Amino acid sequence: MSTVGIVCEYNPFHKGHEYQIQQAKLLTGAEHVICFMSGNFLQRGVPAIADKHTRTEIALRCGVDAVFEIPFVYASSSARDYAHAAVCMMNALDGIDYISFGAECDDMDLLQKIAELTVNEPPQVSEFIKKSVSSGISYGSARAAAISEYLQNQNLTGYTSADLDRILASPNNILAIEYIATLIQTDSRIKPVPIRRILSEYNSTATDNDICSASAIRELLRSGDVESLRRHIPDSCYNILQNAYRKSFPMFDDDLSHLLSARRILAPCTDDIVDMDRDLCNRLSRLDTNLSFTETATALKCRNYTLSHIQRGLLHTITDLRCDDYSHFKENGWIAYIKLLGLKKDAGAVIKSMKKASQVPIITRSAEIYKSTDSTGLSMFSYDIKAADIYRNMVYNKYKISIKTDFEQPVIVI
Amino acid sequence: MSTVGIVCEYNPFHKGHEYQIQQAKLLTGAEHVICFMSGNFLQRGVPAIADKHTRTEIALRCGVDAVFEIPFVYASSSARDYAHAAVCMMNALDGIDYISFGAECDDMDLLQKIAELTVNEPPQVSEFIKKSVSSGISYGSARAAAISEYLQNQNLTGYTSADLDRILASPNNILAIEYIATLIQTDSRIKPVPIRRILSEYNSTATDNDICSASAIRELLRSGDVESLRRHIPDSCYNILQNAYRKSFPMFDDDLSHLLSARRILAPCTDDIVDMDRDLCNRLSRLDTNLSFTETATALKCRNYTLSHIQRGLLHTITDLRCDDYSHFKENGWIAYIKLLGLKKDAGAVIKSMKKASQVPIITRSAEIYKSTDSTGLSMFSYDIKAADIYRNMVYNKYKISIKTDFEQPVIVI
Repeated sequence: MSTVGIVCEYNPFHKGHEYQIQQAKLLTGAEHVICFMSGNFLQRGVPAIADKHTRTEIALRCGVDAVFEIPFVYASSSARDYAHAAVCMMNALDGIDYISFGAECDDMDLLQKIAELTVNEPPQVSEFIKKSVSSGISYGSARAAAISEYLQNQNLTGYTSADLDRILASPNNILAIEYIATLIQTDSRIKPVPIRRILSEYNSTATDNDICSASAIRELLRSGDVESLRRHIPDSCYNILQNAYRKSFPMFDDDLSHLLSARRILAPCTDDIVDMDRDLCNRLSRLDTNLSFTETATALKCRNYTLSHIQRGLLHTITDLRCDDYSHFKENGWIAYIKLLGLKKDAGAVIKSMKKASQVPIITRSAEIYKSTDSTGLSMFSYDIKAADIYRNMVYNKYKISIKTDFEQPVIVI
Repeated sequence: MSTVGIVCEYNPFHKGHEYQIQQAKLLTGAEHVICFMSGNFLQRGVPAIADKHTRTEIALRCGVDAVFEIPFVYASSSARDYAHAAVCMMNALDGIDYISFGAECDDMDLLQKIAELTVNEPPQVSEFIKKSVSSGISYGSARAAAISEYLQNQNLTGYTSADLDRILASPNNILAIEYIATLIQTDSRIKPVPIRRILSEYNSTATDNDICSASAIRELLRSGDVESLRRHIPDSCYNILQNAYRKSFPMFDDDLSHLLSARRILAPCTDDIVDMDRDLCNRLSRLDTNLSFTETATALKCRNYTLSHIQRGLLHTITDLRCDDYSHFKENGWIAYIKLLGLKKDAGAVIKSMKKASQVPIITRSAEIYKSTDSTGLSMFSYDIKAADIYRNMVYNKYKISIKTDFEQPVIVI
């Protein structure tokens, strides 16, 4: 009996995700699919379109056996830290045999080579990155260019320079490389299984196909209504979203605006916040506090930072995620607890055995945290609680409906 | 040439205020009326129905010659501190000859006697207050009862016990007593001039008369529209409010709700906040963060505190007004600067001579503060700025219109 892990946001779950789950089981022969899902906030520094409990139920109805929550501090971090934390969770659970991920490139040899280059960075690559960053290019782009250049120069692959550039420009490939890099770094027994994505463009907004990207689906919701999703998401997903429609879903980036304004007005912004620095902080302090979240992020956008980086900086300003806290978490083994959001009844035995083998406590009710972990874990968990309270307030502010707090919400069992 | 000072909130300005201004000039023979007005937040711990600049313009159009702003930290404090700060402002200006105030009781002898009792509290009175407070009665009620009892026992007035109780139960009389007490304490040359209010009930909601209370007018606005005010406020006031209607006015207590929620979610509430204590803080932390401002205040209401006290505690939680800051301000002469909100052109000479004689800097543009005062003044002023930003965000959140920041808003001259 084997188990495959998937790192996901499911924002929202769509037919491409369904396909990935089927393929992951097919390619690995695993009986169980365990998801490691972001909570209410995502890697781009923005709120999920539906809350984590709704997205958990959808995942369970669509072929996933259990859903664990990636702690807020990592779910809203750089691709590298996000991927690293998710793989650390899988390692800690000690019951995951494979990690499967969608990528535009499923050439494991190439992905492995690149991952090794990021783990043991050759001096030429480091030098190239340093130069590019100091010239104002974002770290991600600089590293991609450096690796592409290096592979090309060393003639290590059969790919052309243009191919490599394209492969290294894809966010999904980048995540794949980070997963594999962490597997190498942690000497993990988990085997990587890339699955070639049917859709090539992460941010494609085309919706003329049944399978379209999550961002295209969000765009449909922004302009249309829930009915327009029907074709692109599994029926059971549609039913759950339809039920939540205009009660707690959909939520968009600008539903954070009132909290960003409040945070900026009520306390001075500081640069000891993750993904903020003195420059961003100074420029932020000069912007009108009545600007929306999107307007603020757009006004701060410049060549040195990706929009995601800036959005994360704003989200971390709201949540007051301190650099020293974040460093402390990473220096203390990254993962202090693993929160179970939901499971299928017939996966109960698997979770039970994971609970026994796990190197960190598995939390099924939020209140358990107080007797399960140390001060590091409590501090990390306090960000999860704050993030949940923030999302809950956003929903209330928009729909005048109070969703359950994390302490009220039981683990979802179907 | 003499000048009469009036302490006010003008929330909103009505015909009773107009009458008071006329009477004040008549009784004192003063040429100029100078107002000391609360800014965007009031003594009850709630937002003003219109912003301070709008209320300033109204006051100037309705017979006032100049309007100075009571700093936020005092405008939102207990009746005692509010009155004390306002009189200190008048003393500091060194150009105010009279202080006139509306009160249900205009018997100066009685008011003076009571004020003296509060300044030099006889041991019997102190003892009585102490006992009552420890039995769970609010300080204000305890003091009123103690003074009434004392005056009755000593047979110091011609009033019956019931009369005294009634007189001491009126918020306007209490303020009058506090003004006079401060005049005594500061050995002020300013002469108190009580004016008997036409309306006897501060919180009367009766609107069958042309002159009705500000709270009755606010009630009209809550249920009706701006047209319903016409009869109860001077025409020039009506025109200004009509112009602001649904742009920045009216604002109600619950327009603070999103900021209270944000404040409570984003940072733990502490008891080193003015008007909060451990009990209130503990009870607050157990309440749903999605409750409105009014719902939260109501849920916290208990015998020991007036609703105003609780509302101030919540407002100070939002603005993070620290006890040690507040004590520091009071220990350092109370008034560090005086902000001019507006003046009539022909009062320019009076203000100019006040600027020369004033013991503290008079600020006409907010940016002047940086070269006019010390760190105490800057700290006090930072609360004014925060309060203005909060109000501005409330207006934006409600009407999607950005009013001017305090740094953009020039002094109003008509």
